[in-house]
Amino acid sequence: MAYDARRETILETAASLFASQGYERTTIRDVARAAGISVAGLYYYVRGKDELLYRICERSFTMVLDSLTEKLAATSEPRGRVRVVIRNHFEHFLRHMNEMKVLTRELDALEGAQAAQIYALRHRYYTICRNVVSEVAVASVPPRLATMALFGMLNWIHMWYRPEADGNADTLADGMTRIFLDGYASSAETRAPWTRPTAASR
Amino acid sequence: MAYDARRETILETAASLFASQGYERTTIRDVARAAGISVAGLYYYVRGKDELLYRICERSFTMVLDSLTEKLAATSEPRGRVRVVIRNHFEHFLRHMNEMKVLTRELDALEGAQAAQIYALRHRYYTICRNVVSEVAVASVPPRLATMALFGMLNWIHMWYRPEADGNADTLADGMTRIFLDGYASSAETRAPWTRPTAASR
Repeated sequence: MAYDARRETILETAASLFASQGYERTTIRDVARAAGISVAGLYYYVRGKDELLYRICERSFTMVLDSLTEKLAATSEPRGRVRVVIRNHFEHFLRHMNEMKVLTRELDALEGAQAAQIYALRHRYYTICRNVVSEVAVASVPPRLATMALFGMLNWIHMWYRPEADGNADTLADGMTRIFLDGYASSAETRAPWTRPTAASR
Repeated sequence: MAYDARRETILETAASLFASQGYERTTIRDVARAAGISVAGLYYYVRGKDELLYRICERSFTMVLDSLTEKLAATSEPRGRVRVVIRNHFEHFLRHMNEMKVLTRELDALEGAQAAQIYALRHRYYTICRNVVSEVAVASVPPRLATMALFGMLNWIHMWYRPEADGNADTLADGMTRIFLDGYASSAETRAPWTRPTAASR
């Protein structure tokens, strides 16, 4: 297997172990065994367990940021941009649920420059999302509260999501976009959740 | 100190340690030291670390359920009942942020009858909240998705909430109720978030 492909497999294996049993409880030996390589072989790819955690976070934030930036560049309508944020998050993290658990639970274990770099990436992601959210604000709710409410809606799915009961990224994105933009109790049924309301549909 | 008061202090101390360093990493000796009693003294109150976790969860769910039931009994208007759910959750968990972290991260560590009892309490809480949420549903979003979106908004606060920047339980409840019921992008500014819209305010 090529170096990059092997390293990806190692990161995915480590994310799976960190997600299921926690970063603290997982040893570098556990990761090597689960990835089917020797401990010495594993050290060819990473310097230690902390680098595994760092690489998992760095890769996940970079991927979700890259795809978001690309999609936002192609969408100018404010409500549509909110839907892009929501859908992009689900598209990425439904396929990377282990990484989502690691990102929401284990960042505290990072230290020094690694922690600083990951928090900078997270802040970049937060800032982009907050700016998109601010564009649609009508409610007198602080953008910080609204953005954090949205992140809560999005990231909590690792606690409950079951594909067979809850549908795919599109189904989730439709429901969450609808609630976030128009509310669960408002009667805006006739329009799609990511379009601007017209006089006729109010 | 009386038995019950001492036991409460022990549970709060244990919740603080479980929240900051994780259940797995915390020893019964850590809890005894932080609570200022001997390990033997601690065993007078609980049989072991698993019972500490069980009692923390049982106490928190029972408290939040009791106060919710009492407040819902006094409120009949559907939108007002949603606000009661949100406000009650914040009132309880802003004062019990450590317990919130434990409940959202450590339930998997429970086993057997203890796990069954806590999951039953959690399911009771979920069901009450979902029924309240269903009463206001206008949007064609499944109540399960809407309820989980709401729990995500509410429980994510342990990741970001700072009292000096984000206000008290009332401020949070107003913002979240507004977003959940009416949406962040809908123009319903003139009415309070927990009242039904009138023709004049649309």
